[in-house]
Amino acid sequence: MGIVVQKYGGTSVADKERIFRAAKRAISEYEKGNKVVVVVSAQGDTTDELIEKAKEINENPSKREMDVLLSTGEQISIALMAMAIEKLGYPVISLTGWQAGIKTDSHYSNARIIEIDTERLQRELDKRNIVVVAGFQGINKYDDITTLGRGGSDTTAVALAAALKADKCEIYTDVDGVYTADPRIVPNASKLKEISYDEMLELATLGAKVLHNRSVELAKKYNIPLVVRSSFNDNEGTIVKEVNSVEKLLVSGVACDKDIARVAVIGVENIPGKAFQIFSLLAKENINVDIILQSIGREKTKDISFTVSKSNLKQTLDVLTKNLHIIGAKDITYADNVAKVSIVGAGMVNNPGVAAMMFEALYDAGINIEMISTSEIKISVLIDEKDAEKAVRAIHDKFKLHLLNSNGK
Amino acid sequence: MGIVVQKYGGTSVADKERIFRAAKRAISEYEKGNKVVVVVSAQGDTTDELIEKAKEINENPSKREMDVLLSTGEQISIALMAMAIEKLGYPVISLTGWQAGIKTDSHYSNARIIEIDTERLQRELDKRNIVVVAGFQGINKYDDITTLGRGGSDTTAVALAAALKADKCEIYTDVDGVYTADPRIVPNASKLKEISYDEMLELATLGAKVLHNRSVELAKKYNIPLVVRSSFNDNEGTIVKEVNSVEKLLVSGVACDKDIARVAVIGVENIPGKAFQIFSLLAKENINVDIILQSIGREKTKDISFTVSKSNLKQTLDVLTKNLHIIGAKDITYADNVAKVSIVGAGMVNNPGVAAMMFEALYDAGINIEMISTSEIKISVLIDEKDAEKAVRAIHDKFKLHLLNSNGK
Repeated sequence: MGIVVQKYGGTSVADKERIFRAAKRAISEYEKGNKVVVVVSAQGDTTDELIEKAKEINENPSKREMDVLLSTGEQISIALMAMAIEKLGYPVISLTGWQAGIKTDSHYSNARIIEIDTERLQRELDKRNIVVVAGFQGINKYDDITTLGRGGSDTTAVALAAALKADKCEIYTDVDGVYTADPRIVPNASKLKEISYDEMLELATLGAKVLHNRSVELAKKYNIPLVVRSSFNDNEGTIVKEVNSVEKLLVSGVACDKDIARVAVIGVENIPGKAFQIFSLLAKENINVDIILQSIGREKTKDISFTVSKSNLKQTLDVLTKNLHIIGAKDITYADNVAKVSIVGAGMVNNPGVAAMMFEALYDAGINIEMISTSEIKISVLIDEKDAEKAVRAIHDKFKLHLLNSNGK
Repeated sequence: MGIVVQKYGGTSVADKERIFRAAKRAISEYEKGNKVVVVVSAQGDTTDELIEKAKEINENPSKREMDVLLSTGEQISIALMAMAIEKLGYPVISLTGWQAGIKTDSHYSNARIIEIDTERLQRELDKRNIVVVAGFQGINKYDDITTLGRGGSDTTAVALAAALKADKCEIYTDVDGVYTADPRIVPNASKLKEISYDEMLELATLGAKVLHNRSVELAKKYNIPLVVRSSFNDNEGTIVKEVNSVEKLLVSGVACDKDIARVAVIGVENIPGKAFQIFSLLAKENINVDIILQSIGREKTKDISFTVSKSNLKQTLDVLTKNLHIIGAKDITYADNVAKVSIVGAGMVNNPGVAAMMFEALYDAGINIEMISTSEIKISVLIDEKDAEKAVRAIHDKFKLHLLNSNGK
């Protein structure tokens, strides 16, 4: 007996059959005597269709109204899921974000959960209802609807699990779990039995697309073990949790991110404060910068290169070009045909040979490295986009990740 | 300067062009210095599509979850309408039913408004925002979403107009106003310039389909003049208000209702309490009975006939058949190929010849009358469904309603 939070993504509630499959899974936990909370996303393409509708009226609608619009997608899902559970003969109630007490800040379209008032949730669970909660949405202090941005439903599920002190938080998706690499690129990639929060964070940020990093951060903060598994089969999935150091893998996985562009500010005067100037301009525009590389200052100028996501490229070039005279640089150049390939492993911090092995794999495959960035548990390289898949396979082979058994050891 | 409430029905917000047309109308009132509240319904077929989605999952979903589902239709409309007004450069904010403070009882799918907490509405209007409110929906004391049933958005508009003490409440629809008969049946029907609440109530109840009777009742209660007009042109429309007796028309219009069935309970024992027994059985099932006719008791039995809406026919037959032995009747018969044709006029109460004139028109047209029912301002007859249009035209001609000038005199 405990509290179980299950989250079903858009593909897992896309049609009648899938909704019933998810409903039955929820019921099977309920039948074990557990209190069950089901968090659902909008069905399949609903969100895209709603965005389409909005853009037809106004290409640049206010984010507040966009949130009013988009939150209907999850509201439709909770009603349908509740109706499916009713049909199967179990007591159920649906709650929107505001009904579930999910309080957020006022950053429309990208709000953060501030707190969850679990009073109503607890009351419904105590009545032995299965509670279906709309993911991705909340309410701010003005009683206005907010949405949580990309990966928002995962965040809802983890936040609810934390607030309810749940025993389990299961994230149902369309893949079997977390793999050592994208199985579409590396067919013999291994599924990890478990992975640490930090590794998952690096993989999420790096474009592994299984879990959004905000939900992983939250799970880490409240020490909520997450189970990532498929809603289409009964395979075991991957547990994301705090992993003991003895279990730490040298390399847990290889990730690839093509949603990236490289920008170079050329001929910056070689005096202090220039990097600060450039990156504070970008920070003001809310542009996230990833890998940064500064050429060694020779003579009077230096070059500063960095990467941004492709969606931020135009805005980045605009703001820098407009401020070129203030920065005192000669030129701005960019490349959007690049990819970032990364290896992640909690064990690499104590194993200095890992980077060399990765570079060797790339050298053997004839792939040129443009930029390098490292952290304690991650090494990323920027390469030509056309080499991305080849690089992922070469690295995966080099570290023999296909030999990781399902125990993740 | 005043407060104007405008309501746009589903066809009036069905696509981009119509939304912008409605937005411009709202703005034109705003430009005159008025505070403007816009109430919108769900777009075109949205509600039907949502019902379809629900039925696919569960043919008999709980009404609570159905309301969660259906209320998304109006929520989509408010966001899109707000985006259109934003696009045109005016300050606007959308409010769902609960955000607009619309408190209802807990009759899911057919809730009644108990009160409106106008605090937020007033605040937004004071900020000079155009306020777009979701029609058809509210919130009950459990913080659950309710919907108001058929004609719910009209009711929302009138209730808001009453709560805000609005100067004007305009109901925009796909017809030009209230006619002396359905123009599809009687091509030369006249548009009424004005009509009393009571006449409108009879016409609404009788199937004129312009305004729902709950909204008219509410308008009458709070003495809110309603303007019914088309969102597709600038024609003047019809004003529904308290009409002075000197202005009262003998006959304001002819209405026809085909959504009707006649049920007869045959061979009921001729003792007191039988009618009570039958109609309390139906009342318990929430079935509305319209015209009632009881045969004169001869010998030991009598027959009791009445009409119900077609959608209630099956339930009516079920409950009566099941209780046939308790009622002590011989048989239940029914006919669903009937129609009710009615004339409405506030002036007829003082003109005893009106009924005779109506029956003469039907006699001249060779139409047989099956049942008759009268009230102070209405005479209804039940006839064969196939004669319905012929009857409406014959009566319209007889009373020369096509000669009513646009002053409604």
